[in-house]
Amino acid sequence: MRLYDFLSSGNGYKVRLLLHQLGIPFERIEMDIVAGATRTPEFLAKNPNGRIPTLELPDGTFLAESNAILFYLADGTPLLPADRLPRAQVLQWMFFEQYSHEPNVATSRYWLHHLELTAERRAALAEKKRQGEAALQVMESHLATRTYFVGERYTIADIALYAYTHVADEGGFDLEPYPAVRAWLARVASQPGHVPITAA
Amino acid sequence: MRLYDFLSSGNGYKVRLLLHQLGIPFERIEMDIVAGATRTPEFLAKNPNGRIPTLELPDGTFLAESNAILFYLADGTPLLPADRLPRAQVLQWMFFEQYSHEPNVATSRYWLHHLELTAERRAALAEKKRQGEAALQVMESHLATRTYFVGERYTIADIALYAYTHVADEGGFDLEPYPAVRAWLARVASQPGHVPITAA
Repeated sequence: MRLYDFLSSGNGYKVRLLLHQLGIPFERIEMDIVAGATRTPEFLAKNPNGRIPTLELPDGTFLAESNAILFYLADGTPLLPADRLPRAQVLQWMFFEQYSHEPNVATSRYWLHHLELTAERRAALAEKKRQGEAALQVMESHLATRTYFVGERYTIADIALYAYTHVADEGGFDLEPYPAVRAWLARVASQPGHVPITAA
Repeated sequence: MRLYDFLSSGNGYKVRLLLHQLGIPFERIEMDIVAGATRTPEFLAKNPNGRIPTLELPDGTFLAESNAILFYLADGTPLLPADRLPRAQVLQWMFFEQYSHEPNVATSRYWLHHLELTAERRAALAEKKRQGEAALQVMESHLATRTYFVGERYTIADIALYAYTHVADEGGFDLEPYPAVRAWLARVASQPGHVPITAA
């Protein structure tokens, strides 16, 4: 398998982490997304939406969207429940991640690290702070009585939400008010085969 | 089953449409989201993220996130492929819908219909127009050589993307430059059991 990736990306990290934990060897292609490497005609032929991560399967098929890639890779393993309801609950949290969490927590971090902080972005950051904190509070309430997001076991829902939550401070988010989230972060980081976001 | 819903919502419509097409009877509870009906303590106990659609299953479990609900309901039916790769491709398009399409095409429509058009929202609409058109172009390229999004058959990926695309004009999007998208919209609307977004 070949993973088109960007080392700093939490979305890319989700896939890297799962590949490591499943023991699947892969080739990693670093794409300079800030310089537009995913918007070239050559890359758009692989993923018309021009984003990483994009996974190239052994048969030449390209699969996009980090959480769809997680689902594909984890299917049939203990990291994705086989039963219908817990499987849908894993997806519920993964859609929550992409809609309510990532556009706020991850985007703030990306802007602060990689882009010029224009007046327009600075104004938008305040609203992203508010919405990102709301997402963290939803996680805190859920985790207050649970060890993992679904079925009291480590699944790809945890990988999806860990990716940007554990570096939320880099986007200006303080995790001090979220003790259940912090305890869960430590549980995820102690899973066998865990690797940090900096590990290529 | 009981569906917490808002008639004008495309996310709610996805679930309504699928329930109709699968012949599953349900009770619909209209929630006035503009007036904050999903932010009451009573509703937050059902869905801590305070959003519709939320589906209450016969055993009292609440399932949130429109596309996770679609996956749950379609599991085991012809509307969701059973094989691993096409199933992940369905999810790829559903994550594309929630990340690249809905926040632009749907949010523009919601702001124009339901909220005050502040100077801040007016400025943000221009960027949403640009990103929404990029999403429509990704769909156009994909559909130029295909009848449906995955596997040349009607799936929940089509339902997810149909919901806000067919009312994109209400968000200020002109579909004239997207002939493959328009032909696909007509194919989706001709499916057995199709109901309009206005059908409660």
